[in-house]
Amino acid sequence: MVTKNQIKLVVSLKQKKYRSQHRLFVVEGEKVVRELLDTGMRPFKIFAGDAVSKGKFKEAEEVSSKALKQMSSLTHPNGILGVFHMAEATDVAVQDWVVVLDAVRDPGNLGTIIRLCDWFGITKLVCSEDTVDCYNPKVLQATMGSIARVDVAYVDLREFLNQTDLPVYGAFMDGASVYTSDLPDKGILVMGNEANGISNEVSDFISKRISIPQFGAPTAESLNVATATAILLSEIRSRE
Amino acid sequence: MVTKNQIKLVVSLKQKKYRSQHRLFVVEGEKVVRELLDTGMRPFKIFAGDAVSKGKFKEAEEVSSKALKQMSSLTHPNGILGVFHMAEATDVAVQDWVVVLDAVRDPGNLGTIIRLCDWFGITKLVCSEDTVDCYNPKVLQATMGSIARVDVAYVDLREFLNQTDLPVYGAFMDGASVYTSDLPDKGILVMGNEANGISNEVSDFISKRISIPQFGAPTAESLNVATATAILLSEIRSRE
Repeated sequence: MVTKNQIKLVVSLKQKKYRSQHRLFVVEGEKVVRELLDTGMRPFKIFAGDAVSKGKFKEAEEVSSKALKQMSSLTHPNGILGVFHMAEATDVAVQDWVVVLDAVRDPGNLGTIIRLCDWFGITKLVCSEDTVDCYNPKVLQATMGSIARVDVAYVDLREFLNQTDLPVYGAFMDGASVYTSDLPDKGILVMGNEANGISNEVSDFISKRISIPQFGAPTAESLNVATATAILLSEIRSRE
Repeated sequence: MVTKNQIKLVVSLKQKKYRSQHRLFVVEGEKVVRELLDTGMRPFKIFAGDAVSKGKFKEAEEVSSKALKQMSSLTHPNGILGVFHMAEATDVAVQDWVVVLDAVRDPGNLGTIIRLCDWFGITKLVCSEDTVDCYNPKVLQATMGSIARVDVAYVDLREFLNQTDLPVYGAFMDGASVYTSDLPDKGILVMGNEANGISNEVSDFISKRISIPQFGAPTAESLNVATATAILLSEIRSRE
């Protein structure tokens, strides 16, 4: 039986400050809940809106569809809502490429970039403090289980970049073509904000400015940050 | 002065059947209207919701904010709404790579793919008849001016692929690595539906199955179709 206080807690997790306070986050749907369990993420509670959904998870607790609707961020809740403990941030020495995001604001873009890191085996994603929260429901809907395999940290980028010994690459419209640039076997790749690119404060720490050349008619358009990250990670991994 | 009939016409263009019937489509916002005019797209009407917006386009007609809200697809109309004539489909002989989409349903994915074609200088995008309409407002919001530079055709893919002499490449989870595949200087690249990939009927016409290798821990996840298109077009163009 779900209590009023539990519902209130889950509803509060729609806000970042309560997610940070309780170190809990919410995902919805059988597939993503299954994946997080499979990757060893620790569940706090799993709620099922009906008996069929409950049958799918031995850990699930059946609740009324009204209670599920209250807790859900979806217009049409899909039967399963999982509340998970956030992973503890690891701080292992970096022996590979790290992706750094400077003020990426769109949840869909962050979600896509987490999935890309997972695909390309990048286990560490470092975000500026003003990047969208990776436990935002829209981010989680886009990442699916990848959130369990990519360690996302929010830090002061100037401090982080100041203390690294790795070469720092940054994506700029006017950088050198990535296709003809040397790419070492480890380094840092900085991607900037959707509208403004990499900020001036972060630019100071970039040792190599790279770009993806435009092959069509020159226009004012740029590539979306998630799309550009896809192409750059593909280049990095395919040369190894 | 905008008439009731004009408002009714613009509202009807939210539906694909009326867009096809009138050969007209709607875009919103100063930037995209400016870009379509700059690339020579023929405006039918440009409506401005206030005097400031009107001042930006000599062709604009000022309307009440109530009328603009009626015509707009946005919750908060942004001052400028342009109605444009659809481009006539060209049927030039193909001397380059062509991207083919088999039942891509998400407007954001199609919009991103049109922008990618524009970036990589692919001027012809061929879609199955069940691919989302490229004049859908959500597609146009994602493509911006790229819609004016990429010729999008909706055809029976079996007929189209049956009559081509170009090599037909298709993206499959189990294809050969694109990084080690030969890529000729012209060809067809087929991308499939978000959930089901390339359909069986279309698979029959594919001569070379390619994929983007996974570098991380093997998972059930796949790359999003727009992200995968970005990586494949980058590989195609960077080898030329």
